[in-house]
Amino acid sequence: MASIAVIGGTGALGKGIARRLVAAGHQVTIGSRSAEKAQATADELGAAGYAANADAAQGKDIVIVTVPHASQGDTLAQIRDRVGDAVVVDTTVPLVPPKVMRVQLPAEGSAAAQARAHLEPDARLVTAFHNVSAHHLDSDHAIDCDVLVFSDDVAARQTVVDLCPGMGLRGLSGGALANSAAAEALTSILIYMNKTYKADGAGIRFTNLAEAPAIP
Amino acid sequence: MASIAVIGGTGALGKGIARRLVAAGHQVTIGSRSAEKAQATADELGAAGYAANADAAQGKDIVIVTVPHASQGDTLAQIRDRVGDAVVVDTTVPLVPPKVMRVQLPAEGSAAAQARAHLEPDARLVTAFHNVSAHHLDSDHAIDCDVLVFSDDVAARQTVVDLCPGMGLRGLSGGALANSAAAEALTSILIYMNKTYKADGAGIRFTNLAEAPAIP
Repeated sequence: MASIAVIGGTGALGKGIARRLVAAGHQVTIGSRSAEKAQATADELGAAGYAANADAAQGKDIVIVTVPHASQGDTLAQIRDRVGDAVVVDTTVPLVPPKVMRVQLPAEGSAAAQARAHLEPDARLVTAFHNVSAHHLDSDHAIDCDVLVFSDDVAARQTVVDLCPGMGLRGLSGGALANSAAAEALTSILIYMNKTYKADGAGIRFTNLAEAPAIP
Repeated sequence: MASIAVIGGTGALGKGIARRLVAAGHQVTIGSRSAEKAQATADELGAAGYAANADAAQGKDIVIVTVPHASQGDTLAQIRDRVGDAVVVDTTVPLVPPKVMRVQLPAEGSAAAQARAHLEPDARLVTAFHNVSAHHLDSDHAIDCDVLVFSDDVAARQTVVDLCPGMGLRGLSGGALANSAAAEALTSILIYMNKTYKADGAGIRFTNLAEAPAIP
């Protein structure tokens, strides 16, 4: 079991991820802008601890960042000097409200590239969890959606792929960090499908994979 | 049944698409740079006709363009004045050889945006078929992959969604033309998965859609 901070852990996505990590038996610390807000969510989920974001990120095996795109830069700046050798998992999708059903990737190519620029050059950056519905995560039911995991650090990427089955999810490597653009863009398609096809949290599955991890 | 030109119809993707359109009963014209090459494929598939690309594109209900990214601009320039009111389906994926497993979207945002610039402003541009394996298309077996269809022309988009079931495929609207970036980027992920997970033509399925077309 790993020590894991969920930064922005009081938001919908962060809370859903934290709930499943707690259920899997991990030592989860809820981070938020204020320790008080973090405490309420930690109490609700039975998490091991809570702290303001920067303190939550200190000394962990894995730090998962779950904040809106508008807060990504500031949040990563807060934890930049705290994450050390931790695997840093950025979940940011570069939605541009109000047109969230339209793909609008940033000039850098992806939110992943933006995250890269906000962290130390040797930070072990991974991106993942772009396509899983927050409200499905914040439950104990099965989720019919694969999790794409991207990184230029092969070991860090595998750490996150391996984290998924305990959360009831299949993690799949999607390759290099730059490939994160595909999953980030897909989120707008999924939001569009939620409306167009009356989906309760549309998801994706990859097919025809002979040697992929089993669907949990 | 529709009159359909498949431009670049002697290539792997074009031939696969043409085979399924012929099987569905459409009036298919194979286009290629030379009419002779087109004739061989038309004969093999039992297509209704063949012609050089520009002539093939003339007077059709639907014109499907299936050429490599490097040939996209020249090919669209050839047919620009021929397509008239046809629905023009661009299938281009902006791969950058040799690194085809890495997402490298063009500065314009997508190959769809590049196609838009190569056609008349009122051309009825749709993009689709980015994620379906060419060798699966060039067969009569079931294909476990959804087809995402993008356009700013809602009626044209629906025409292509409706074309899919006859080809043994589920077509899904992915929204605006700009959203094509998501499917284009996904192709690099699928190529990566073919290698990483020993996939024989990895595909995608969308899940949790309450009101989507049935999988054929």
